[in-house]
Amino acid sequence: MDLKTLKNLTVKAETKIVLLVLDGLGGLPGEPGGPTALEAARTPNLDALAAGGVTGLVDPVGVGITPGSGPGHLALFGYDPVKYLIGRGVLEALGIDLELSPNDVAARGNFCTIDETGRVTDRRAGRLTTELCTELSAVLDSIRVEGAEVVVRPVKEHRFVVLFREQGLSDQLTESDPQRLKEAPLKVEARVPEAERTAGIVNAFIKQAQVLLKEKHPANMILLRGFSKHPTLLTFEQLYQLRAAAIAVYPMYRGLGKLAGMKALATGPTVKEEFEVLRQHWQAYDFFYLHVKGTDSAGEDGNFAGKVAVIEDVDREIPKLVGLRPDVVVVSGDHSTPAALKSHSWHPVPLLLASRWCRPDGVQEFSERGCLRGGLGRLFGKQILPLALAHAERLTKFGA
Amino acid sequence: MDLKTLKNLTVKAETKIVLLVLDGLGGLPGEPGGPTALEAARTPNLDALAAGGVTGLVDPVGVGITPGSGPGHLALFGYDPVKYLIGRGVLEALGIDLELSPNDVAARGNFCTIDETGRVTDRRAGRLTTELCTELSAVLDSIRVEGAEVVVRPVKEHRFVVLFREQGLSDQLTESDPQRLKEAPLKVEARVPEAERTAGIVNAFIKQAQVLLKEKHPANMILLRGFSKHPTLLTFEQLYQLRAAAIAVYPMYRGLGKLAGMKALATGPTVKEEFEVLRQHWQAYDFFYLHVKGTDSAGEDGNFAGKVAVIEDVDREIPKLVGLRPDVVVVSGDHSTPAALKSHSWHPVPLLLASRWCRPDGVQEFSERGCLRGGLGRLFGKQILPLALAHAERLTKFGA
Repeated sequence: MDLKTLKNLTVKAETKIVLLVLDGLGGLPGEPGGPTALEAARTPNLDALAAGGVTGLVDPVGVGITPGSGPGHLALFGYDPVKYLIGRGVLEALGIDLELSPNDVAARGNFCTIDETGRVTDRRAGRLTTELCTELSAVLDSIRVEGAEVVVRPVKEHRFVVLFREQGLSDQLTESDPQRLKEAPLKVEARVPEAERTAGIVNAFIKQAQVLLKEKHPANMILLRGFSKHPTLLTFEQLYQLRAAAIAVYPMYRGLGKLAGMKALATGPTVKEEFEVLRQHWQAYDFFYLHVKGTDSAGEDGNFAGKVAVIEDVDREIPKLVGLRPDVVVVSGDHSTPAALKSHSWHPVPLLLASRWCRPDGVQEFSERGCLRGGLGRLFGKQILPLALAHAERLTKFGA
Repeated sequence: MDLKTLKNLTVKAETKIVLLVLDGLGGLPGEPGGPTALEAARTPNLDALAAGGVTGLVDPVGVGITPGSGPGHLALFGYDPVKYLIGRGVLEALGIDLELSPNDVAARGNFCTIDETGRVTDRRAGRLTTELCTELSAVLDSIRVEGAEVVVRPVKEHRFVVLFREQGLSDQLTESDPQRLKEAPLKVEARVPEAERTAGIVNAFIKQAQVLLKEKHPANMILLRGFSKHPTLLTFEQLYQLRAAAIAVYPMYRGLGKLAGMKALATGPTVKEEFEVLRQHWQAYDFFYLHVKGTDSAGEDGNFAGKVAVIEDVDREIPKLVGLRPDVVVVSGDHSTPAALKSHSWHPVPLLLASRWCRPDGVQEFSERGCLRGGLGRLFGKQILPLALAHAERLTKFGA
């Protein structure tokens, strides 16, 4: 069902929906024949939700496809992740809480080292300290070029973000990063005629940066890539008639929620604090996206026990959530991150949906094995939100 | 996921993938309440692969759709079988190992009988012997027409293949076969203006054929249909960065592999010999397509026990395959061929995928009933290859 058709089916209601995203939730056995982290975790409260609800397995983007965080989240929010791509520049900007306007072209920057002939000798300038990155970003932020405002902000180590802000700029640009050593940084070129003005602005910026950084060896040059604009998405209010809020510790996930028109609520760093923020704002919104990062971080570190512990942390907060009497609770992830792989993976993600209108599927526990037998079967990520709306009685009949 | 997007995600790796196709693998019970051929067969080695891997059921083309061998295979190779159609002429040419260039228009030919008024009295000329077909094909091969080279090769009984070879020919032609008796062969007509030159060439060929065959009753005329060109497919190397080889006894399956850019390896006629060829060439390729025909032939003959025996033959070779330490093994079929139906059918095909990165699904045997409970769920044929690439760690993340 495409979004436009879905939009035409949405109706107002008093119901509330919670989308609880355990980042990188899906896993693999920690050892051959053993349980996954979700299966190993003691989760009486999630299991009770699963027993009273309905379960399934989700391919966030496609079968066999390993999703980045951007596509994984857009799919959970109901958008087609192949159609609405988020560029690296924009994602990086979201990750440092930088406000993006629809006019901005964002790029990811690296400080790098060039030799006296202008060739790159270190693409990361020896991974300079974040402190030095902050200082040099302030230098670049002072650059003025004709035709656009320029904003430069540090990220971490050698990484920074640059925004070019002016009406009518295009992100259809080639990258300046040659991606290998012993080559000079590339001139940024327009991929389409409409981008020529922007290419000129970007190249003028790079030229000035090189002059300002001349004596800053090893950080004596910059490389820019991932030129991208904010994808223009219809908001949750426009699409689904939902007043939506995002509760996330990391800026990037707040940023993804904001792309969908959610209000990002301030929260402390623990899972407990995130659920407390949910409780405090319960009356003001119809839809809450609550993001838990720890499951993914532990998976990326190969820390199976750590992932189990985060899942158990979340489970302890479930009674608080249930006590708020939400009409629909969805628990899933934006992708799998098995500790065994130490990375995102293509494996389908467990999904549970609890509401008074679920058809029982006999599944008694929230686990990969349980969800494989679930009543929702196998879904694509973008199909979850329509299901949540349906169970919240926020969709009318299709056709007469 | 469309092929272009998938192509952009592929990365080089050292891993090896084996796609073992048991033609017409899926079945129905031999008698009410009984097992299918796959279930009846003793397959300890395939069952062990299933127990350590993950299983599912495949609709090669679509739900309820009975696939021909062409679409069934293209889907297994990752191509959309509805988008990339292989015409009957091309398939027939592949089936006799005839090399096709992108310029060739191929057609399937029948020798037929016409009466003195020119009307068809037998569309198959009394199913003449293959020997006579070979002799008469040589006569037709001597025909010279203005504007194209003509190649005629015998197939079997009344069937032959004709190629029209010249730059710029079109396959958008109507057929000469009236498909019923007591009508005269039809003039071949252009379906689009660009095909008019080709139609003229084909009609000139038919006219000369009729003259040459005048005294050859009952094979005194020909009928042509299935005009088609080689579908231009991106190869396995271009799409997936895979050096791919095809091991198949029958020319048509080698031809299908070659369409996808696979190297067709010479093999003896037995299953054992095919696996021996796999072993001999193990180092030289990243991907092997190994085709077993016997399962389909037995199914087409209604020979349930014969199908069981071929499956057991294959099972005996599995230890040799496992001994090569492939990173991913996929076992499936291009369609079902239940002995009870004596034909291809629409029933979904059992699938097993074994690799170190499979998420356990609890299925202990490779069978229709086992695969119904499998962790891969229900898939379309074209989704198998992305899964194989993912498990072989040959796909990078989609989006940042």
